[in-house]
Amino acid sequence: MTRNTIGVFDSGFGGLTVLRALLPLFPGSHFLYLGDTARLPYGAKSQATIARYAVESARFLEDKGCQRLVIACNTATALALPDIRDNVGVPVTGVILPGAQAARAAATGEDILVLATDATVSSHAYRDNAASLGLRAHEKACPLLVPLVEEGWIEHPVLYDVLRIYLREALHEMAEQGRVPSAVLLGCTHYPLIADPIRRVLRELDCPATVVDSAEATAAEVAAAAGPQSSLHAATFECFATDSVQKFARLGSLFLQRPIHSVNLLDLGG
Amino acid sequence: MTRNTIGVFDSGFGGLTVLRALLPLFPGSHFLYLGDTARLPYGAKSQATIARYAVESARFLEDKGCQRLVIACNTATALALPDIRDNVGVPVTGVILPGAQAARAAATGEDILVLATDATVSSHAYRDNAASLGLRAHEKACPLLVPLVEEGWIEHPVLYDVLRIYLREALHEMAEQGRVPSAVLLGCTHYPLIADPIRRVLRELDCPATVVDSAEATAAEVAAAAGPQSSLHAATFECFATDSVQKFARLGSLFLQRPIHSVNLLDLGG
Repeated sequence: MTRNTIGVFDSGFGGLTVLRALLPLFPGSHFLYLGDTARLPYGAKSQATIARYAVESARFLEDKGCQRLVIACNTATALALPDIRDNVGVPVTGVILPGAQAARAAATGEDILVLATDATVSSHAYRDNAASLGLRAHEKACPLLVPLVEEGWIEHPVLYDVLRIYLREALHEMAEQGRVPSAVLLGCTHYPLIADPIRRVLRELDCPATVVDSAEATAAEVAAAAGPQSSLHAATFECFATDSVQKFARLGSLFLQRPIHSVNLLDLGG
Repeated sequence: MTRNTIGVFDSGFGGLTVLRALLPLFPGSHFLYLGDTARLPYGAKSQATIARYAVESARFLEDKGCQRLVIACNTATALALPDIRDNVGVPVTGVILPGAQAARAAATGEDILVLATDATVSSHAYRDNAASLGLRAHEKACPLLVPLVEEGWIEHPVLYDVLRIYLREALHEMAEQGRVPSAVLLGCTHYPLIADPIRRVLRELDCPATVVDSAEATAAEVAAAAGPQSSLHAATFECFATDSVQKFARLGSLFLQRPIHSVNLLDLGG
């Protein structure tokens, strides 16, 4: 019997937080993780360019034998999920709808706050997915959080200062419309690394919202779609990156919370 | 008589600080600025890829009639200046050697401190150019400064906190080797926007170093090479970007310190 093989794709290493959430749910399975690091960030690029990159990456993973794909990248999910589904023959799960569904389950009212990058906020993909579930999402762009996480300042006083500024602004913007969020959705694959500081600052600001991690929500959704898994063996993984293999191994280990010993360099062109 | 036309190239809009320094030195001239925003940042890419991108951009500017090119990008200068010179027929000035020369003129001893991005520090281009002038450069990577400038937090308390951390670390690293910098070189085209905060924090830390701006040094070098300019008319410019025209106009106006009314969208491919 061949092993269950699942492909996980991101523009960089942030999606490793999704892989981290997937591994314990898929005993015996093998994961291929592809970070398109040579062409990141996708955020500032046009929809056509992002779709082309994402489809190339998805096809690579399908060609390598993946029976299921996870798009662990908010920008690619927001702008290219239909293109990816049109171009591969295996089931594809994106990161946005599962996150919105988990926020729906956690929220006690209809108002939620979504923290994300500029590009994801501009796409309004979370707002639209949340609306389809009866939620009103206030989207807050937090452009400094990714660089702070990549600098490794995930427990640093500067991170707390920046979080206080962003979260105070977001809660104030909502309060002006008479809204209070009962759930805060982490709409970027880098943010699970700072979920605890986010929780602490929300408490400081007297906001009792539940923090929802879209990486964990996506992993749970993929596990539900794949059905029961059982094996005596732990899941295994291998990593591919299109550039910057050293940085991938160093930062990737932080995101995955286990050592990444080797990364395969891959040329997708362009 | 045809007007003097000069091309300025960067991976993004940081090089607009070099254009800002050039404009008053070239009355009557016309500038073409190209920001390869679709493919930024160059920092994490391989030398071969960066050289290909930079040569394509330089050729575009030469084809548009530029009689002189300025590479207003530290990464492209560090990794692709010889390739660019081999592939165009007009004089090319990079941003690193003029910066090092200005630091040489400002320094009272042989020790200088260079602040730059991760990619520029890893290339050691400033260290090598400084060494050729008899200077010992300590290179300090400051990865959060570009995102802070792009967030517009150029007078923000968080910027000051981050500067205190980076500059205290850098001065401490030098002090451990018995070294004190007499000049601090801004080795990134984003940093001229925060030259004053950098000066203030250096004073706070009792460091009497002169702050040297490689954008101004590069502009002065180009003016010296071009010879005397005289005209009753102010210099003019037009901008080209390979993606994200709105962001270019918005952020670019901050860097250029004058409004950018229109940006031409350009497709250089993949």
